[in-house]
Amino acid sequence: MSLVKAHLPHGSERNIAPILVEVVRGQMVESRHRATVAVVDAEGHVVASWGDIEQPLYGRSAIKPLLALPLIESGAADAYGLGTAEIALATASHNGEKRHTETVMQWLGRIGLSVDDLECGAHYPYDEATAQAMWAHGEKPIRAHNNCSGKHAGFLSTAQHLGEPTKNYIQYEHPVQQRLLGVLEQMSGSDLGSVPRGIDGCGIPVIAIPLGNTALAMARLADPSGLPELRAKAASRVLTAMMDDPFMVAGSGRFCTTVMQATVGAEGVYAGALPDLGLGICLKVEDGTSRAAEVVMGRILKHLKVIDEATEMKLHEVLTPTVSNWAGVATGQIRPAADCPF
Amino acid sequence: MSLVKAHLPHGSERNIAPILVEVVRGQMVESRHRATVAVVDAEGHVVASWGDIEQPLYGRSAIKPLLALPLIESGAADAYGLGTAEIALATASHNGEKRHTETVMQWLGRIGLSVDDLECGAHYPYDEATAQAMWAHGEKPIRAHNNCSGKHAGFLSTAQHLGEPTKNYIQYEHPVQQRLLGVLEQMSGSDLGSVPRGIDGCGIPVIAIPLGNTALAMARLADPSGLPELRAKAASRVLTAMMDDPFMVAGSGRFCTTVMQATVGAEGVYAGALPDLGLGICLKVEDGTSRAAEVVMGRILKHLKVIDEATEMKLHEVLTPTVSNWAGVATGQIRPAADCPF
Repeated sequence: MSLVKAHLPHGSERNIAPILVEVVRGQMVESRHRATVAVVDAEGHVVASWGDIEQPLYGRSAIKPLLALPLIESGAADAYGLGTAEIALATASHNGEKRHTETVMQWLGRIGLSVDDLECGAHYPYDEATAQAMWAHGEKPIRAHNNCSGKHAGFLSTAQHLGEPTKNYIQYEHPVQQRLLGVLEQMSGSDLGSVPRGIDGCGIPVIAIPLGNTALAMARLADPSGLPELRAKAASRVLTAMMDDPFMVAGSGRFCTTVMQATVGAEGVYAGALPDLGLGICLKVEDGTSRAAEVVMGRILKHLKVIDEATEMKLHEVLTPTVSNWAGVATGQIRPAADCPF
Repeated sequence: MSLVKAHLPHGSERNIAPILVEVVRGQMVESRHRATVAVVDAEGHVVASWGDIEQPLYGRSAIKPLLALPLIESGAADAYGLGTAEIALATASHNGEKRHTETVMQWLGRIGLSVDDLECGAHYPYDEATAQAMWAHGEKPIRAHNNCSGKHAGFLSTAQHLGEPTKNYIQYEHPVQQRLLGVLEQMSGSDLGSVPRGIDGCGIPVIAIPLGNTALAMARLADPSGLPELRAKAASRVLTAMMDDPFMVAGSGRFCTTVMQATVGAEGVYAGALPDLGLGICLKVEDGTSRAAEVVMGRILKHLKVIDEATEMKLHEVLTPTVSNWAGVATGQIRPAADCPF
């Protein structure tokens, strides 16, 4: 599906991502971040865009809500009695806090598998307090601590329920990944048969989808009215779970948990589904930095009036983070660029 | 001093930093880094440049060798019997390994002060093995672990030797910082009386100097033949110490220790002094990422034939780092951009 472009920048400006974030130290801007942004509705109208939204993009963790659809559609979620917590966790880049890992472990038990069946690798929890406590006790991380362990538990549930092999479920050729390819093709309106691909931090394939079409896929999640009935129901159930249990989507102190409808990916990709507006958002920071991705997402949510002034005050430290030095003195700020066009 | 420009890009290209580094995942470039580079000789001739080299820049840790000059010129180094290890440490963003911290502690004792007199704040050592061992023993970092503790010990030595107060030596108005301002003005050939300034991660003032003039200051360190005799001798002694004890400048596995003549700063700034060529280098990654700064510096050193093919082979993992995922699988690479102009 081709996107319908409402307005595009002119001439040579079109392909260069604009500077949207500045990092200030004292009296001067020290560093700058460029980003490309698309806001699209469920029919493919580009409501707003900056930069080249046709650029191919690995959605990484930002499109996890889309990757959770087969868990519902296959009947696996109902067969195993999975609730809001597990479905939210299937979309998560979680903090590895106790509630995250315990839920994953119980879930794996319920489908007759264990943590050893996860193929995501292990890393220390994103949550600093949890990681520090583990260090202090000489405790090594297990695969359940991986921020993607919920997504992987979802993949295993679908394979197990459908009688597919559970081994090598992260391989491109495995039915789990081929099913996801079909979901991404339909939701993004893109032919993904021969596009560039790679391997994600957690081992699954990543598929290049144009940035604007990734926003379209998120818009169809936000407004599933035009989707086939089964998929529409699955989309609603995934989004509802994320909003009902935002802690599971990320964790303590995290932007995604605070601003529930947005999910964050690696390498500066951020995506959001806005059910009230029926819009999808996708943005990519050119240099891949997450400190800039969160600030751009905050600004676009403000621009779209998803964040009002009261919320903006409350989220001040998330939207325009203070930079402090080792002695705890505030030395600067990360904020939308002075000439940010929105 | 105005820089003499050998060649500058034309028209609209002049002010946009070119993409010099690409981060590849699988079959596609996922992220891109822009950077500005200046290579200058001691007379201010711009030997090579890309991007706007007149942009103001906080040199941060990259110009630490310049900040070590008063330690020699004041007579403090000789009065306290400081050797190669201490002088190298004064230029360091060190790893906080045992030899770094022990040398700082002994040095402070020798000038009649203690770790409590350091005003740099504390952070866990950059060296992961050292930090992990501290975690495991519940040990908190002290100020000697701060990567800048050697620079601060140098500042305290100069103040103590000259009979200046040692308290508040990090304040802009303190004689230590005013002396450094003079050094930076002379070495960079810039009037710095009313330029933007801020506070560094370790608490000292940072002063905005044009990027090209920062390269000039490094060139004068590399080729001090045109400097007043006292300063020329100090410059040679600082560079010699760095090359004779490269471990002290950074530490185990660090780029600066491997490629001795280059120093690294925060927010994507890298500077180098090349005595054999009589050249200074300064580069700034627009977005402030260090992963890109190291790759650009490696490429420019190769371009200038400071790194030959044999060294390039040996440094392969430093010059073009592999990106791996949590399961240890190689998923990509950080490397000079395909159309890097040098």
